[in-house]
Parts: sequence; structure tokens; C-alpha cells
Amino acid sequence: MSFTDRRSVLRFAAMLPVIAASAAETGPNPMAADGNATPAQGAGAAPGEVTRILARYVVAARYEDLPEGVRKEGVRTLLNWVGVTVGGSHHQTVDIAVSALQPFSGPPQAAILGRRERFDIMNAAFINGVSSHIFDYDDTHLKTIIHPAGPVASAILALSEMHPVSGMDFLNAMILGIEVACRIGNAVYPNHFDTGWHITGTAGVFGAAAATGKLLGLNEQQMVWALGLAASQPVGLRESFGSMNKSFNPGRAASNGIFSALLAAKNFTSSNGMIEAKRGWAHTISTKQDFREITQGLGQHYEAALNSYKPFACGIVLHPAIDAAIQLRNEHHLKADQIERVEIKVNPLVLELTGKRNPQVGLEGKFSVYHAVAVALVEGAAGEKQFSARALSDPTVMALRKKIIPVSTPGIATSQVDMVIVLKNGQLLQRHIEHAVGSLEAPMSDQALEAKFTDLAEGILPDPTIRRVMDLCWNVEKLGNAAEIARLCTPV
Amino acid sequence: MSFTDRRSVLRFAAMLPVIAASAAETGPNPMAADGNATPAQGAGAAPGEVTRILARYVVAARYEDLPEGVRKEGVRTLLNWVGVTVGGSHHQTVDIAVSALQPFSGPPQAAILGRRERFDIMNAAFINGVSSHIFDYDDTHLKTIIHPAGPVASAILALSEMHPVSGMDFLNAMILGIEVACRIGNAVYPNHFDTGWHITGTAGVFGAAAATGKLLGLNEQQMVWALGLAASQPVGLRESFGSMNKSFNPGRAASNGIFSALLAAKNFTSSNGMIEAKRGWAHTISTKQDFREITQGLGQHYEAALNSYKPFACGIVLHPAIDAAIQLRNEHHLKADQIERVEIKVNPLVLELTGKRNPQVGLEGKFSVYHAVAVALVEGAAGEKQFSARALSDPTVMALRKKIIPVSTPGIATSQVDMVIVLKNGQLLQRHIEHAVGSLEAPMSDQALEAKFTDLAEGILPDPTIRRVMDLCWNVEKLGNAAEIARLCTPV
Repeated sequence: MSFTDRRSVLRFAAMLPVIAASAAETGPNPMAADGNATPAQGAGAAPGEVTRILARYVVAARYEDLPEGVRKEGVRTLLNWVGVTVGGSHHQTVDIAVSALQPFSGPPQAAILGRRERFDIMNAAFINGVSSHIFDYDDTHLKTIIHPAGPVASAILALSEMHPVSGMDFLNAMILGIEVACRIGNAVYPNHFDTGWHITGTAGVFGAAAATGKLLGLNEQQMVWALGLAASQPVGLRESFGSMNKSFNPGRAASNGIFSALLAAKNFTSSNGMIEAKRGWAHTISTKQDFREITQGLGQHYEAALNSYKPFACGIVLHPAIDAAIQLRNEHHLKADQIERVEIKVNPLVLELTGKRNPQVGLEGKFSVYHAVAVALVEGAAGEKQFSARALSDPTVMALRKKIIPVSTPGIATSQVDMVIVLKNGQLLQRHIEHAVGSLEAPMSDQALEAKFTDLAEGILPDPTIRRVMDLCWNVEKLGNAAEIARLCTPV
Repeated sequence: MSFTDRRSVLRFAAMLPVIAASAAETGPNPMAADGNATPAQGAGAAPGEVTRILARYVVAARYEDLPEGVRKEGVRTLLNWVGVTVGGSHHQTVDIAVSALQPFSGPPQAAILGRRERFDIMNAAFINGVSSHIFDYDDTHLKTIIHPAGPVASAILALSEMHPVSGMDFLNAMILGIEVACRIGNAVYPNHFDTGWHITGTAGVFGAAAATGKLLGLNEQQMVWALGLAASQPVGLRESFGSMNKSFNPGRAASNGIFSALLAAKNFTSSNGMIEAKRGWAHTISTKQDFREITQGLGQHYEAALNSYKPFACGIVLHPAIDAAIQLRNEHHLKADQIERVEIKVNPLVLELTGKRNPQVGLEGKFSVYHAVAVALVEGAAGEKQFSARALSDPTVMALRKKIIPVSTPGIATSQVDMVIVLKNGQLLQRHIEHAVGSLEAPMSDQALEAKFTDLAEGILPDPTIRRVMDLCWNVEKLGNAAEIARLCTPV
């Protein structure tokens, strides 16, 4: 989908009159999922309403109801998720998880993407969720900083291998799961995140439960229970950031979501108001609750359409400078030895967070504006490979780092950069970035997503397979069986 | 939406991977687990200290260090836990869980007590944890209302079936796990519970991880990580009380604890200060943190020795009222039709937790002070049978429920009750309970525990087996292999 398509979808959604959504095949209920703000849907909502409205929506929502732009963003989310999951699949973190869980896994029901082991669907979903987050390179719902595909897609791709579903149903469930996670996240963000929760795991588990429950065909009451059991299993604290425990969180949210839906499918009961009740999730886990974020405009406005993807495998504050460097390099066919110096006006936060002049190991490279700009100029990219030990010790890159001169400039927003490259021949090359590629204002193109995917999957899947997997993702809506994607991601 | 907002950027920056946690083997540490309070152990403790002190203690503590009285209470805890777990094993909740999880279980590594199915250790631990809590009849650490054996014993009895351990090591690990859960609970109680958390699942997961990690032989750093992964997986909200989701919580705490320890055993890392850090467990999940409760007097004072057992199959807050009712009934040979009304001054928590006037199904009866007092007056007992469908629909009990008048009285402690029974002839019968039977001040005798066990296990295990299982529990310290207990609890 093009940038303009995406913007028009958002604009269209915003202009829609607030009208009642179809209440589907559920019986009469005094509260329609109608998007009207009522006092009962605010912080003081009576038990039963919020969870039930959400459950009813998920149970009733059909693929045919999804606007074209939302479907397209779902497809892009899927492609990005498969790429980062395959890419992360041989990280030490994943090796450890596979080795620890192998003796306990159930039947080989589902693939671990990028690897040959097959585990039961819950253990496979856990590990795929870990892989997807290990590079901090996955999708982001910027309003909440939830990485929704990790919990949601990991859960249902595993499920689809033992419970065949069409690509349309798969995409619908994935989008609904993301919608559930992001709406619940909106209801408690930012207080919930500020307190210390890793919102990807705490809100993500609802998304995994909802998507799994959708594909299992749960009825409304069962979906209420699935959400209730998910509410009982929030995952992740921010203190774990910087350790393997961070990528544990989306993985465990995925397996907890499946666990919730499987039990609910057999009528394992929960309370009816686990999201909104006084001793329920939102009041227990956050000092802010805005339940209208969950119940308003269901089926009309889609948070899933606001998902974004990182073009660069590092913190978002570095993205404008990298974007400028790659643009100027490509337009002028620059070589490192032509460059005298690179002056960059950056927001002061850039040097505060990424001021390492001489990064020694890969993760430090992600905290060095010097390295990030230098490697982007030399290699025209800033993917996972550009932060490897190989890239960090590359003599050309190391020499160029010394010529990068960031200048803290309070008038420059964090989304912006002003770059001037001074060439040895005296020529000046300038570029101002207002919004870096990967932001909602300048989303990654489909082509760029393919390049990212290819870069991540190279060496793990054969090149022709990489092309076929991407084609399967782009055409997921035509697939008779969504599990084909998982099967193709298993190396022979 | 852009990242121009500094707060968003900072929040994002906090999510960036930093340097991976240091290697597994740690050297000597200047802070011994010596129980001395230092300022650093209070609410403002520096990261690393509280979790590490606790981990070091668990790794080092030996069976030989346990005082005789603590061992004895551990044995009573084990016997009570086996009884309630066997007793609950054929409840509909357990049938559902077994049926839902069977297709996904790993190898048949561990018994589901009281049943023939065998699941992998995590799924078996989950189900045994559910069984143990389904009647609300399990052990209670009264200071926190944690039911510690559900998470802890469920985890390690399952583990012991694939990883043989002596009875002494088993008992030591169980007591240490209970110690960990209750001390962490003390640090955040009551605020944490008041907010809405089901503390058995949120603190219990630490106990399960610690006990499992102890039997797996984790080193200190691995134990720190196991506690960190446990901190990432709190289970349970009070809103679920009255549904199957309540017993889900100790079960899931058990399986999450095993999951944490198995990963940590392979050096899956977490932060070093997950319990006490600013964005760690205690600060995120509670408005109160008293870390001295965790670190002071380790190996000297035992919370595990403060465990208690319920003579009545319902929430502990109801026990004083039931005790008073049974005493007055038996002393005066009361019949329901003599009673005009029953006035009970109760702590406000009683009505908050058990205020259901017209319970419809068994689990609701346990949350009804009206039903509990009425059935105790009619039948002179409040075992599992008194909360059955039969008892709930008994016309005499239903009529008497309407005559029960609880009055929230802040001056009455939760351990107390003032009961006045007004008879139709005008006579007043009064009883003040200071500490109900089953409390620490009036503990159940070994004989009463055996009677409770027998009542629960009858019809599930043959009578001679019941006797043999109780003898194994009493003599657990002499067992070469603790798993014998699990094997004997499988019906032929």
C-alpha cells in the first residue's frame, strides 16, 4: 500500500460518523458496541461491559469488514514479522530457549521459524516470539510502543499448523489480535508503561488470546473468558531491558495467549469483567484507565493500521541521521575517501543517548551516532549486519567515524536532522530530514521491507526460498492454508 | 505521530538493548545472607541486592540447617497439599484443563495426582496446582493470605518424577520455596493484595522458581535469573474469584516457576535486580515495598513455619463465623427452624470478599458468608460437601441464608467474629471468636489433618492407599525418592 493510501484510510476513519457496528449474532444487550462515549465506558465502567463489548466484536468481525488499507498494513506487518523472526532465530537467546524446552515439548506441531526443531504450538509460539524481538527490530505501534506482531503472529502461525485456516482468516485474526492489544494498551498508556510494565507483554497477551480464540471459533462467552485468563497472565517488566528477559516477554505473551484461548474453548471460566472491574486488570495494573479507547469505533477506526516498521536496527533517535546519510550517499555515489567531514545538527537527546565515540561490541554500536552514520555512508544500510563485530572493526568505517561531527541543537526535533557533508574537493552536500523513513509520516516502502527481510533471512533460508516466503506473505489473502508460510521458513 | 515528544523518546530509549548481563559464574560477594538490616535493603535498595541476597540464601541453604519445628510444619504442609490436590482432582475445572491441554503436553513425565493421565512436568504442575486450590481448602500463610504449597509443591513434585531427589532435599526445597514466596509477599502486603492482585499467584511464582531451581542445582547467578524470569510472570487478579480462573492462578504460578528455572539453568539471562529495581517487580506491582521482609533473618526466622491449614473448605475470612456457628449449634443442639436471625459483626473484608447473597453454583457458595454460616448451622460442618450443588440448593439452608445478617465492623479483626443468634423464643446465644480453629493460635491437630485428608481422598484412592500416602508424607524425610508420593497417588 502506498503512503497516500494509508493516509487516506486514516483520514477516512477519522471522518466517519459514529454509528453502531453490527452486533452480530449475539443476543440483545443494552450496550451496543456503538462507539458512543457513555459514562459507563469510562474509568468507572460496570463489570462485564468492556470485556464483553470487545469479545463480541472479535467474535463477529469478518475479513470482509476490513478496509483495504487495513488489510494491506496487516500484510506488511506479517512480512516484517516473518523477517525479524527468521533473522533472530539463531541468536544465542533462541539457542538457549530451544535447548531448555526441548525435553518438555509436546508433539512437533509447529515450526520454529528459521530452524529445524518443531515444538508443540505453545512452546513454538514462545520461541518465535523471542526470536521476533531479539534484535529490537520488530514492528511498533508508536502510540503505545507495543510491538504487537510478536505476541499475536507468533501465536496464530503456530496454531495454524495444527488447525488449518485460510490466509484470509489468518490475516483477519492477526489484525483483530493487534487491534485488541493496541486498544487495551491505549486504555492504560502511558501510566502503565511509566510504572515499569513492558506493555508488549502485558497488552500483547490479550492480542494473542483474541487472535487464537478467533481462529478456534470461540463464542462470545468463551472469548470473554479467554480475555479474562489473558488478563491473569501479564508478562514483563522494564527492568529486564538489556537482558534476554526482554525478548522473553513477547514470547511468553504469545504462549500465554494460546493457553488462555485453549482453556476457554473448553469452557474454563473466568470473570466476565476482567479488563474493567474494580479488582480487574486495568485498575490493578495502571493508574490510568480510559475504556473508551477499547470500545469506541470498533470496526471503524483501526489501531492495527498505525503499525510501523524500523528500517534501521537501532534506536529510533538515530534514524533521521541514518536516513540523511543513506540518501546523500546514494544520490551522489559517495565513497568514504571523498569525505572530509560530516556535520550533523541533532536534537540534544541524540548525543545523550548515543554518544559512544568508539563502540567495542555490537550492542554498543547501536548507541553510537558516530558508528551509525559512518557505517550508513560506507554500506548504504543500517541493518543488523551493520552493527556486527565485522562492521564495528571495519577500518573504513572506523576511520570515517572520526569525521562525524554531531552538534547538539535544541531547535532540532528528535524526528529531524540537518546534515552537511563536506567533500575533500570542497563541495557541500546538504540534507534536512523532517521525518525519517519508518515513521508514520514516511513509512517504509514495500521494497524497503523486502530489502530488510532479505538482509535478515540471508544465510538462514536459501535465496529462492526467501523470495517465495515474501511472495507468500504478500499474497497471504489468497492462501488456502496460512501454515504454508511456517513450513517454508524451515530450512531443509 | 512522531517522536518529537521527549518523553516518548526517553521511553523508547529505555527499551534499547544495553550490555548483556554478566556471565553466569559470580565470585564472592561482600554481602552475606546474614539477616542484618542495612539501609540499602529498605524501599530504596540499590538494584541487585535484594534479589541476589535471596538467591544466595536459597542456593546455600541445606536441609540440615532447618530447625526441627520448621521441618515438621513442612511435613504437615505436604500432607495437607497432597490431600487437597487428590481431593480436587476430579472437579470439572480439572477435567476441562486436562482435556484442553492433553493434545499439547510433552512426554508423560509426571502424575496428575488422583488421576491416570501423565503430562510433561509443566503441564502436570499446572493441573496439580489447579486441583490443590479448587476447593479453597489449601494451606494459608495468614500474614499475606498466600496459599504457598499450590505453586511450590505442585512444581517440585512434578519435577522430582523426572529428576529424582531424596525426601530430605525435596522437603528442604519446598520449605525454601514457601519461604521465598511468603517473604516476597510480606514485602508488598497488604497494598499489593488490596490493589487487586491474587498474591498466591504473584508471589507464588517466585516460590515455585526458587524451589525448582534449588532441586536443579542452579548457581547463585542462575537463581537470580530464575527469580527475574519469575518476576516477569505474575499470575492472577482478584476479580477472577468465584470462577475457575481463581484456581488457575496457583497452577499457572507453578508452571511459570518451572519455566523460569529451566531457562535460567541454561543461562537465559534476566536483570540482576528484578525484585527491587525501580522498574522491577515490587515497585511496579505494589505501592508498598519493605525489602527487609525479604532479606532479614534468612535462615533464622521462617515464614514457612507460620503456614496454617483450613478445617473449612472456603476462604479464611469466613472461618471465625463458621467456627462460632458450629460451636453454638453443637452446644445448643440447634435446629434451623428455631432461628429467628443471626447477627454477625465481621471485619469489613468479609463482606468485600464474600458478600454473595444468593450463590448459584458451588464456587460462589465459598464467597457467600450467608451460605457458609447457614450451612454450618444446619449441618455442623463446612467441608467440601457443604459447598456442593446439593448443599447450595438445600431448602433449609436457602431459607436460613436470608436470616444471616453480617455487619461490617472495623473494630473486628479478620481473625475475629461476634455472633449473636436470636431464637424465635427470644433467647440470645452469643459467641466471640478470637482465633478460629485452623489459625496459628489454634492449629489443626495432626489427627484432624488426617481426617481431612481421608475425607478428601475417599472414593479417589483406595482406603489402604490413603493410609500409605499419609504415611509416606509423614515420613518424607526418610524417602530415597520423593516421587514415590506422586506414584502412589495415581489410581490403578
